Amino acid sequence: MANQWGVALRLSIFGESHGRGIGMVVDGLPAGEKVDMEGVQREMARRAPGTSELSTARREPDRVEIISGLLEGHTTGAPLCGLIENRDARSSDYDTKIRPGHADLSALQKYLSHADLRGGGHFSGRLTAPLVFAGALARQVLERRGVAIYGRITEIAGIGDRDGEGAEEYAVLPGRAFPVFDEAAGERMKAAILDARGASDSVGGVVEAVACFVPPGLGEPFFRSVESVTAAMLFSIPAVKGVEFGRGFDISRLRGSEANDAVVLEKNVLRTRTNNNGGILGGITTGMPLTVRAAFKPTPTIGVGQDTVDMSDMSPARIASLGRHDPCVVPRAVPVVEAALALCLLDLFLEAGRFIKGCAG
Amino acid sequence: MANQWGVALRLSIFGESHGRGIGMVVDGLPAGEKVDMEGVQREMARRAPGTSELSTARREPDRVEIISGLLEGHTTGAPLCGLIENRDARSSDYDTKIRPGHADLSALQKYLSHADLRGGGHFSGRLTAPLVFAGALARQVLERRGVAIYGRITEIAGIGDRDGEGAEEYAVLPGRAFPVFDEAAGERMKAAILDARGASDSVGGVVEAVACFVPPGLGEPFFRSVESVTAAMLFSIPAVKGVEFGRGFDISRLRGSEANDAVVLEKNVLRTRTNNNGGILGGITTGMPLTVRAAFKPTPTIGVGQDTVDMSDMSPARIASLGRHDPCVVPRAVPVVEAALALCLLDLFLEAGRFIKGCAG
Amino acid sequence: MANQWGVALRLSIFGESHGRGIGMVVDGLPAGEKVDMEGVQREMARRAPGTSELSTARREPDRVEIISGLLEGHTTGAPLCGLIENRDARSSDYDTKIRPGHADLSALQKYLSHADLRGGGHFSGRLTAPLVFAGALARQVLERRGVAIYGRITEIAGIGDRDGEGAEEYAVLPGRAFPVFDEAAGERMKAAILDARGASDSVGGVVEAVACFVPPGLGEPFFRSVESVTAAMLFSIPAVKGVEFGRGFDISRLRGSEANDAVVLEKNVLRTRTNNNGGILGGITTGMPLTVRAAFKPTPTIGVGQDTVDMSDMSPARIASLGRHDPCVVPRAVPVVEAALALCLLDLFLEAGRFIKGCAG
Amino acid sequence: MANQWGVALRLSIFGESHGRGIGMVVDGLPAGEKVDMEGVQREMARRAPGTSELSTARREPDRVEIISGLLEGHTTGAPLCGLIENRDARSSDYDTKIRPGHADLSALQKYLSHADLRGGGHFSGRLTAPLVFAGALARQVLERRGVAIYGRITEIAGIGDRDGEGAEEYAVLPGRAFPVFDEAAGERMKAAILDARGASDSVGGVVEAVACFVPPGLGEPFFRSVESVTAAMLFSIPAVKGVEFGRGFDISRLRGSEANDAVVLEKNVLRTRTNNNGGILGGITTGMPLTVRAAFKPTPTIGVGQDTVDMSDMSPARIASLGRHDPCVVPRAVPVVEAALALCLLDLFLEAGRFIKGCAG
Repeated sequence: MANQWGVALRLSIFGESHGRGIGMVVDGLPAGEKVDMEGVQREMARRAPGTSELSTARREPDRVEIISGLLEGHTTGAPLCGLIENRDARSSDYDTKIRPGHADLSALQKYLSHADLRGGGHFSGRLTAPLVFAGALARQVLERRGVAIYGRITEIAGIGDRDGEGAEEYAVLPGRAFPVFDEAAGERMKAAILDARGASDSVGGVVEAVACFVPPGLGEPFFRSVESVTAAMLFSIPAVKGVEFGRGFDISRLRGSEANDAVVLEKNVLRTRTNNNGGILGGITTGMPLTVRAAFKPTPTIGVGQDTVDMSDMSPARIASLGRHDPCVVPRAVPVVEAALALCLLDLFLEAGRFIKGCAG
Repeated sequence: MANQWGVALRLSIFGESHGRGIGMVVDGLPAGEKVDMEGVQREMARRAPGTSELSTARREPDRVEIISGLLEGHTTGAPLCGLIENRDARSSDYDTKIRPGHADLSALQKYLSHADLRGGGHFSGRLTAPLVFAGALARQVLERRGVAIYGRITEIAGIGDRDGEGAEEYAVLPGRAFPVFDEAAGERMKAAILDARGASDSVGGVVEAVACFVPPGLGEPFFRSVESVTAAMLFSIPAVKGVEFGRGFDISRLRGSEANDAVVLEKNVLRTRTNNNGGILGGITTGMPLTVRAAFKPTPTIGVGQDTVDMSDMSPARIASLGRHDPCVVPRAVPVVEAALALCLLDLFLEAGRFIKGCAG
Repeated sequence: MANQWGVALRLSIFGESHGRGIGMVVDGLPAGEKVDMEGVQREMARRAPGTSELSTARREPDRVEIISGLLEGHTTGAPLCGLIENRDARSSDYDTKIRPGHADLSALQKYLSHADLRGGGHFSGRLTAPLVFAGALARQVLERRGVAIYGRITEIAGIGDRDGEGAEEYAVLPGRAFPVFDEAAGERMKAAILDARGASDSVGGVVEAVACFVPPGLGEPFFRSVESVTAAMLFSIPAVKGVEFGRGFDISRLRGSEANDAVVLEKNVLRTRTNNNGGILGGITTGMPLTVRAAFKPTPTIGVGQDTVDMSDMSPARIASLGRHDPCVVPRAVPVVEAALALCLLDLFLEAGRFIKGCAG
Repeated sequence: MANQWGVALRLSIFGESHGRGIGMVVDGLPAGEKVDMEGVQREMARRAPGTSELSTARREPDRVEIISGLLEGHTTGAPLCGLIENRDARSSDYDTKIRPGHADLSALQKYLSHADLRGGGHFSGRLTAPLVFAGALARQVLERRGVAIYGRITEIAGIGDRDGEGAEEYAVLPGRAFPVFDEAAGERMKAAILDARGASDSVGGVVEAVACFVPPGLGEPFFRSVESVTAAMLFSIPAVKGVEFGRGFDISRLRGSEANDAVVLEKNVLRTRTNNNGGILGGITTGMPLTVRAAFKPTPTIGVGQDTVDMSDMSPARIASLGRHDPCVVPRAVPVVEAALALCLLDLFLEAGRFIKGCAG
């Protein structure tokens, strides 16, 4: 559904970039879960704009006000609604020129003049803040059951990070402001972002999320495959144009004898020697780390002049955005991809009856 | 849902590779649509096994018997059920060795000993036959409204086809048994498949589907984005490990000024000069060709010996499959990816109220 | 959804009264559940036509052929598809006169001439056979967890049965061909049916179903209330025009002090002294017996002449059905209502994670 | 879903009786619909407490603050979120005695001590305010397409209103503060409410809603029957224990020849002479007025002493509520039932593609 998501855990998001605010309702959280609001707010801060020269100058503290569903720091089982105010919206008049690469073109064709497209409106990347909020709640529930989720930048402007070497190495990521394994590559990525910024242009990249200690047996064959559920959520994030699991597109270049993950028994647990399938076989988790990558296109809002059409008189026009924008959304997208994965896993967890939804459930 | 899919068009699939048969129920098709069963059967034949040395030796005519929902060659508005018999199933005893790269590992952990895993059971690629059947119905409804869907192989074993040059060139594809633009590359791909076959091994590849003349305005922001809907369906297909739209992962390596598609007015229709976004912006169709690619891993069933575990006594074991299998699923996957795209588009069409579901609706 | 139902347990039904056959796909059944096919077939026989002078003369054995999902008498976790042949369909030409009280009027307006309305087509009461089949599977799963479901006729043609006196008395019902507590009232009901039959007319009535030993905590507030789920299913059954829980419409005539069920502790279990609320408070089960009643209108197909319109020339016409029909659907509806309740309870059970769906789930 | 509802029109509700506030998100409203906020607020006032001696003394203005989805008085196509503050909540300590007839019993068993049950918490009738808000939006959209919805009290404490005589008479209802046809019966109903109030007791009753000028062809056979959709929504309203359509339970006491609605052609439109089926046949609208009734139990919160259990020590206890409560919820429930019907019809309208969701859709 357009702005509603989930089967056992249900999320509803709302708001516009330059309106009163944004927010979300989460339904289906088990009752009696402790919520660490400081931890939630830390996740929000990772995504919030205005915190570094790599991101937009718009400043939003993105503090979440809880309206319902929480009592004395614990979930009640009732829907949890959170609101985030828009503080630094600059309600300039809406430009009648279609911004290339933006939802303007499709939104105009779908909603005609009725959509609120100021600052991207409901299509804005700002709507990922409610995802991060809901994802932070989901992550806390999952962490209490032993699941650990890590995110990193694997590529920006074509500059790649090196591959990870198992769950231990991932543990280093949460401590890094710019989460990559190869910090030298990270510096080159940052330089590429600042370069693009200097040219009033933008760059894209790829974010990876990994979930360790996921129990085997989550997901279903076919339409509720873990890949289907996760990809649908990731493609909801503005600017994502590709999603892959395990070795992804690269696995299609291997032979079966290289791609297949040999099965071994370690301490009475079935595992695979390699993890080319990213922890998923037949749409169902195997117990190996679940790995997924999402490709983000470069921010469409740029200062470089581009050809477009002015809707006021349907004439050819040039557009160059002078407003605040991210030269690269990828660093701020890392917590969003982690949150998306957390939401998907908790939904699948609850759907499998893995732990009890109501305490006496 | 596991084996049910869709919002306005609803699909339910069932069956096992070595059971009585397979089939599907399609609900929500508009009443009064003419169904060309020969055309449907032609699509089935494109996917059917046993038709070339590039595919498995199992022979299945895959003729669909209609149980309900069709009267005098037209849909009635009631659910359409179709059955496909299994004829050439070889019910050998089930091997207790886990086949690497297969759903065996996850299915055993989810269903214990209860799953019917003979020939892959319900996880078998054979379950894509009902998808092709349902997709053929959807495609006929769409074609009557002007939408054209094309599929091709863009890569096998790392050997790539060249890029297409617009809708006209796509029209050549339906006439080709091995649908690529660059026929020389196609020959190299075939040789790679036969090579792998000779080595009792397998190769993977990438399939592209393109839908031309899709009206703008289909899809919704966020969770019902065209990308979310389509990717969820594509990741339901066994062996798919990556999905991308437009330029996909490559767009993340461009600058915004290169990636953005300039907007132009042609014959009073808003179009974009390039189509790096694959016909989708903000999750909603723009009217430009919708392009999507799916990466298939190499067939996991191979004759090469691999390490695994024997479930009968949990001992380390070697496995080398002697049975019939596809050295590469990609050629047979082309009609499956086309069918998946057709189903998604018809669901979005109907959801948007684009044409009337009931005739007086 | 039109012909698909359920959240954790998903049902898809298909078929037409005078077509090839009817059937259903059940998805989400836990793997490894033993299925007693003789028991299932006994339930089918309770609903089957042609077994007594109280029902239509159409004879259908309603034997279910299993296509998938069952292996050596146990569920596999994959979708279970069952087919039921139509044997005794009399494919007379379709009458162009609209039958009053039938779906003809609305179906013609929705599907125009495209619907297959022979014998009621997809709208036929015959489509309750797949419900009974699926319900029998659900009931076996529930019974193994201690839940017992009983059904009875509480009223036919205005003649009422007396109230029951607790779970023990319900246990007498499965042994009765005409399930009422007061057998003298039952005889009067049968006489009323035969009277109506003699007059080429029909009568209606009310069916009650009770589920004992339902655990507390099933269902959710608001849109997944047990009442919402159950009523939606019951109103799917052709001819149902009213549904009530506990004392139902009568509770609206009591004072709060009479209607409220006093809470008591019995053997450390919270119970209520009375059960006016039918085992549901706030949409959630309390652990008391769940009681529900459905009102069935008299069969619309009758031999008495009625005013209508002939669609062939839109002229006023008279219609008197000479075909085979039930003078009263209520006796055959008892197993249907029981099946509906079983399906709803199992869906809520599975949704609550009450028992594990996949064996290792 | 628990707190989410709808297919084409989607509603998410949240909040607790004694928390920060309550609210809802409506997704799927067509873009460009004018919203008359004063009209919406008038509907809110009809349901608001504290306006007469027939209702609770709690005073809540129930003004809705719009957070998103509305721009210059028109819908944008994005989700519309509205918030309603709780002003007159008296946060007394939560009583450990289970209130008979309340959700306390089931909520305690489902959520243990985690639910926020102050004032009924999320189970409170106060959560019907968001339904009325969303329903008022839906009603405005429907009214613009010619649909008119009326509600009235048909029974309180066993005292019945007389039957209506066609659509004209219904037009008198919106002008009446106590909407009944027979005003003398209305006075007796009010006296019965005040009587119950004087005795610290409560009474129940029945509410009817009628939708005129509904187009034929809405709804689907079986699980999306108009009755299934509407009943599921009505049974979401706290205190509803019965729902019936057309003549409802009474139709089961007629013969087929009396119950069937004769078909006639009037001004080239197919109609029925009577409307015993309440505008629905085969689950699909016929174009006749859609009539539905919901039975409300007496308010469970009463001042009369009742037996219960004290959860603090699991001892038998007596409870007599001294707090503010409605001696009868029926008068305030009339706008709730109307709103519920409006939401269901708009969902079915949009699902049928009856009018275009996006303006260019």
